[in-house]
Amino acid sequence: MMPRTKLLQTLDSKVVEPPPVWLMRQAGRYLPEYRELRARTGSFWTMCMTPELAVEITLQPIRRFGFDAAIIFSDILVVPFALGREVTFEEHIGPKLQRCASVDELVMDAAVWDARLGPVYEAISVVRGKLGRETELLGFAGAPWTLASYMVEGGGSADQKAAKLWGYRDPQGFTRLLDVLERCIAEHLIGQLKAGAGAVQIFDSWAAGLPDRIFEEWVIAPTRRVVEQVRSAVPGAKIIGFPRCATQRGYEKFARETGVDAVSLDTAISMQWALEQLPGNVAIQGNLDPLALVAGGTALDAAVDEILSAMHGRPFIFNLGHGVVPETPVENVSQLVERVRRAR
Amino acid sequence: MMPRTKLLQTLDSKVVEPPPVWLMRQAGRYLPEYRELRARTGSFWTMCMTPELAVEITLQPIRRFGFDAAIIFSDILVVPFALGREVTFEEHIGPKLQRCASVDELVMDAAVWDARLGPVYEAISVVRGKLGRETELLGFAGAPWTLASYMVEGGGSADQKAAKLWGYRDPQGFTRLLDVLERCIAEHLIGQLKAGAGAVQIFDSWAAGLPDRIFEEWVIAPTRRVVEQVRSAVPGAKIIGFPRCATQRGYEKFARETGVDAVSLDTAISMQWALEQLPGNVAIQGNLDPLALVAGGTALDAAVDEILSAMHGRPFIFNLGHGVVPETPVENVSQLVERVRRAR
Repeated sequence: MMPRTKLLQTLDSKVVEPPPVWLMRQAGRYLPEYRELRARTGSFWTMCMTPELAVEITLQPIRRFGFDAAIIFSDILVVPFALGREVTFEEHIGPKLQRCASVDELVMDAAVWDARLGPVYEAISVVRGKLGRETELLGFAGAPWTLASYMVEGGGSADQKAAKLWGYRDPQGFTRLLDVLERCIAEHLIGQLKAGAGAVQIFDSWAAGLPDRIFEEWVIAPTRRVVEQVRSAVPGAKIIGFPRCATQRGYEKFARETGVDAVSLDTAISMQWALEQLPGNVAIQGNLDPLALVAGGTALDAAVDEILSAMHGRPFIFNLGHGVVPETPVENVSQLVERVRRAR
Repeated sequence: MMPRTKLLQTLDSKVVEPPPVWLMRQAGRYLPEYRELRARTGSFWTMCMTPELAVEITLQPIRRFGFDAAIIFSDILVVPFALGREVTFEEHIGPKLQRCASVDELVMDAAVWDARLGPVYEAISVVRGKLGRETELLGFAGAPWTLASYMVEGGGSADQKAAKLWGYRDPQGFTRLLDVLERCIAEHLIGQLKAGAGAVQIFDSWAAGLPDRIFEEWVIAPTRRVVEQVRSAVPGAKIIGFPRCATQRGYEKFARETGVDAVSLDTAISMQWALEQLPGNVAIQGNLDPLALVAGGTALDAAVDEILSAMHGRPFIFNLGHGVVPETPVENVSQLVERVRRAR
């Protein structure tokens, strides 16, 4: 049997020290080799959908920094795309989708699904073959609420107005949309695990600002069902959840009720609080401020040390509280990784 | 002696039932009379800076809905403006300011200050004379961290990148900026109270996503000093604080440590939690989802009832968790006010 990677051991609730480290958006615009490839090959979406490009981009930060996990270069909007929605990315604006006003608009067609998600699975399979045994490979998907928000709004939004209004005015219709998305998201996570991902992360990027009851209905319950569906197809599947900006109450409920193996925390949550309040069998991931990583220097060291010190003796994965931003100096990422690796 | 308004009684930690009700951005684009005035008179900024217009707009929602408090029609950026910064508002884009890279760029000139803030005080004085005795009048200001974010960034931003980087890289220089802003904000709140405002609210609109230690240094401590300065000039001054999206831990610390009389909560915070965890002598304000107000119907009634029920017997001011959005149907606001007024 192959030994478990440090990341999987942590998801098994073991304490690994120094802790495994990877960064959300570790592949991306802050890397000169990414910018160069992007300039040669065109759009973000083409890069996601062309396995050889996705493979190369996934591996770039592993070569440079030796992170403990690679995460497949893809996007949460591949699931709406596989449901027949048109998706485009505009520079400096972000994604645009056809607006969805009814679950009946979605195309449930195995041929479309396979054609549109096949490249992701192929890229995962190739990356797995190229990574060393000590490096984990993560798949991922958007959570039902976050994908619904994008699909109903037709893009990103500060307040998820369109999706919230649908949910408030027509709870049953909106729940049907979440139900369909749950099954498709689970299917996509299962596809990634079968293709060679060792664990998966569910991104609920827009979990902020939801009233308690709504958070329960649109975040907790759908995520729990996704986790159950994935585990019934892939017993023992390891799953990280990231209900971004869920507040302490939201994270605690999420950690206790969804069945995830780890919860990823945003920057606002103190690790001391997490240590005291989150259940000990759920690993913690996070939560350095991406702007402390941009700032570098002693501010970065102090922020890293504070997290490491609070998480000492706890199943823990070092990460950011959100994604790497494009302005990040690569030498600061090296500084971060070295500092985490010196921890004991 | 004049009887205290329902709002002031609540800020005195008394339980008033039904609770006083007003809404953040209750004067604004959702009102046809506002849109009509705006079409005739031009820019948002002109409306803020012309006392007769600011007076009229402040009174519009009081005439229509009979709220328990008016809030002066103004903007948090009047303080940077009074410090010599140019401020412009672009339709659908938001405010633009000269970027500030050093505290030495700020103009500390009493003549500029008086010329630029005089219209606000004049409007307050006129509104006070036109309001009935049962209606409170609120002044307001942005908090030091939120104003610093706007000034350093040159406008709004999702992650306050420029201000955070300054703060991480040059903590002493950034603290000097916060110090200057503290004194100016306190001065502006004192000016409004002396002009006739019965209480003031401090908006820290960008309190989200700050690591614990930073939240303490950039939100809690500066707000506490503003509160102290205001109270030393105006003994017994009543102050509401709104560190938006501060999470449960942030709100609790804010309520216990800044000295405010009330804390205004965003939509993510359950009122049941607030009842159990926030100190009983600090009034609670909030926190209906502005999109529940847009949705209307039974979803609105249920959301209103849930808040009222949790806050029964608690010093409480009914409000939203954020501002009224332009799409809000005016009849839904009437429905809200009637429902709150029927509470007992």
